[in-house]
Amino acid sequence: MSINGNYGNDGYTLWLTGLSGAGKTTIALALEAKLKERGARVERLDGDVVREGLTRDLGFSKEDRDKNIERVTFVAKLLSRNGVGVIASFISPYQTARDLARRETTNFIEVYVNASLDTCIQRDVKGMYAKAIAGEIKNFTGISDPYEAPENPELTLTTDAEPVEESVAKVLNYLEARGLIQPAAVSLGEVR
Amino acid sequence: MSINGNYGNDGYTLWLTGLSGAGKTTIALALEAKLKERGARVERLDGDVVREGLTRDLGFSKEDRDKNIERVTFVAKLLSRNGVGVIASFISPYQTARDLARRETTNFIEVYVNASLDTCIQRDVKGMYAKAIAGEIKNFTGISDPYEAPENPELTLTTDAEPVEESVAKVLNYLEARGLIQPAAVSLGEVR
Repeated sequence: MSINGNYGNDGYTLWLTGLSGAGKTTIALALEAKLKERGARVERLDGDVVREGLTRDLGFSKEDRDKNIERVTFVAKLLSRNGVGVIASFISPYQTARDLARRETTNFIEVYVNASLDTCIQRDVKGMYAKAIAGEIKNFTGISDPYEAPENPELTLTTDAEPVEESVAKVLNYLEARGLIQPAAVSLGEVR
Repeated sequence: MSINGNYGNDGYTLWLTGLSGAGKTTIALALEAKLKERGARVERLDGDVVREGLTRDLGFSKEDRDKNIERVTFVAKLLSRNGVGVIASFISPYQTARDLARRETTNFIEVYVNASLDTCIQRDVKGMYAKAIAGEIKNFTGISDPYEAPENPELTLTTDAEPVEESVAKVLNYLEARGLIQPAAVSLGEVR
């Protein structure tokens, strides 16, 4: 048995894909917190985390998006094969790029964070959809750029129909069922 | 005590710097083998390893060299803080870039792989010095580009005066003394 949640060869790569505003970051942050509570080794990768050290030079063209995912995949490969749990949270609109990550990383789990485009436009947390629809932002996924929904994801989280807690619980249950994390400790009071 | 060589918070970043031909790759490969023999988690990063997934777009200008080290540093940071031993082997001619790696990574150990320029030119394993001297290769460290020797390295391996085995032993001894790897098991015959 592992001594630290996901030690052993039990690294994994949770790959959260979905439209801007679908809830990837919210779920990734909540998942990271829950996994760290359990003492698991986990690294969360998203655009903000990797921009400074890894992808500063990249924009949003197809070519740059592919390079972005390629570099993140390299990092996820090295972490996951060393027993670290990776939560990668990127729009990652192209199936071929996600398939690269699947081939390269250990225990790849494709998580489709699914909210309808209408829902995402209504949420428009960062005001980006309004700008994209007005033509002020180019290459905006869902508006002026394609999003290829996962063909066969391990998990689908329907965030316009379920609360965050439910989405997070689904992922944790899945990791437990796969033996990639230990079941949460059941507190029965302290035994000395 | 750790159960697996460098588990615990005992990640580290061995940073091998030196001229082309000084012996960085030879030492890195030998070190990697020795550490894996001991069951340690270790990742070796060098130009060949990172080119495809991380630095394909980069050349040898000062700017590109800095970006190269910046990306490798990001990867080394995430690995070393998760208990993985990193062997990074790059000419890395600029002190400021190596200082960035020192700041960002866990248990950074600067290893100066030191052979004189004359020795490296004589060795010229890949025929690169001849081309650089003939002006056929630009930005070649030591010939047409500067090499800033480490100001205060943790270790110096003088590869024109000591055999590879001695250099490797120095590094292993250093890691043991720092408590970053366990002493090699002393074989006293099998006890059942």
